[in-house]
Amino acid sequence: MRYFIDISYNGTNYHGWQIQKNAHTLQAEIENALSKLLGVQTPIMGSGRTDAGVHAKQQIAHFDTVESIDTEELKFRLNRFFSPDIAINSIVGVKPDTHARFNAGERAYQYFIHQHKSPFLHPISYYLPKPLDVDLMNEAASKLLGTQDFESFSRVKTDVNNFICNITQAQWKRENDSLVFHVSANRFLRGMVRALVGTLLEVGLGKLTIEDFIKIIAQKDRTAAGQAVPPKGLFLSKVTYPSAVFSN
Amino acid sequence: MRYFIDISYNGTNYHGWQIQKNAHTLQAEIENALSKLLGVQTPIMGSGRTDAGVHAKQQIAHFDTVESIDTEELKFRLNRFFSPDIAINSIVGVKPDTHARFNAGERAYQYFIHQHKSPFLHPISYYLPKPLDVDLMNEAASKLLGTQDFESFSRVKTDVNNFICNITQAQWKRENDSLVFHVSANRFLRGMVRALVGTLLEVGLGKLTIEDFIKIIAQKDRTAAGQAVPPKGLFLSKVTYPSAVFSN
Repeated sequence: MRYFIDISYNGTNYHGWQIQKNAHTLQAEIENALSKLLGVQTPIMGSGRTDAGVHAKQQIAHFDTVESIDTEELKFRLNRFFSPDIAINSIVGVKPDTHARFNAGERAYQYFIHQHKSPFLHPISYYLPKPLDVDLMNEAASKLLGTQDFESFSRVKTDVNNFICNITQAQWKRENDSLVFHVSANRFLRGMVRALVGTLLEVGLGKLTIEDFIKIIAQKDRTAAGQAVPPKGLFLSKVTYPSAVFSN
Repeated sequence: MRYFIDISYNGTNYHGWQIQKNAHTLQAEIENALSKLLGVQTPIMGSGRTDAGVHAKQQIAHFDTVESIDTEELKFRLNRFFSPDIAINSIVGVKPDTHARFNAGERAYQYFIHQHKSPFLHPISYYLPKPLDVDLMNEAASKLLGTQDFESFSRVKTDVNNFICNITQAQWKRENDSLVFHVSANRFLRGMVRALVGTLLEVGLGKLTIEDFIKIIAQKDRTAAGQAVPPKGLFLSKVTYPSAVFSN
């Protein structure tokens, strides 16, 4: 039996999603808990990696069991097992050949910025106390839409063989005391959202024009784009699958 | 010259507002910073105390200077001086006889509860994963309105000589993933909001009826009311003054 597990996590104290030797990672923590509670070694496969310090409102992973399980009971026991940093939102059955990474249709990220000092936003938002031209940042963001080569926003060390992504949403919104960048795509390259945000902020600060921004996309060169913003403001917010993958 | 300073703080790592020997308190931290930056010992007087672990979105304190100061510059320097736990929202001049405690017209508090495990709400909200009858909690809350004796909700060790408060708002609202109790009054007794919330939750959990709740108010006995909820969900959210106190 194959299941999807829907997870929220505060990534502050983790070396990212992906299992690594001698590092505290989310995948290791969750595999360990599942294996303990199910009484058998249970690997999980996530929809994608998140970097050290990055959070998730919704990360999806799949895992297999020999027999069908009581999903509500397992969710309850996992939530009791984990520290407050990790919460299980749901566990649902999927068809046996469903893959959390390969079947994901779209990933959505949010990047949070606050412009006035806040003791409450500080742990999970980037503090940038400077005036920003948000209209101009949105005009630049609109240039990201569609299927394009985003090599300029990819980390240099990477194992992918192409940099083509289809961005379906790229928009800044003011929400309460935060300025939030919403971006969705079929895939993201390593470090891509943080590089996009860093470059859009240079537009908002008046250091780059819209024309500069368009050129940076076309250059396919990471050194052309702006500096990556800190991981603490970044959330994986939603992973979408075709409804056909779910078993009921 | 007398000034009001408007402060937000995350109270998690503090032993409350009020200066105490050998304890890390907000008043001490702020007095120390002001005294350093102004170059002269500068005591502050808050609108009221908050307990250990309680937060403030808006706490007001007054302080005096010999000469008039550049309030924007002082705000900037204080924000740079403090850790992320403390933020200065504004500094404004007030008339010389204005007192942050005695002239406050109304204090407002918010208490945050979340019913689904959340890595992001956890540090500043009380996790209560049980079904609550919020309509009944609001019916009970409405019995708190008006000028009444609230001794049942006051800590036993206290130095006040009466327990009369005028509650002008007492209401539960669902906001995003939180359930928030909003309560405003001319004054609050020690531990009062946390005792009110604990008792209202017993109504919501079906352990007390509305009639029980009315009796508890009338009893004027702290042992009659419910257990206090944890401080981490409590925020002093607003302190209101008559406009006549402001110097411009």
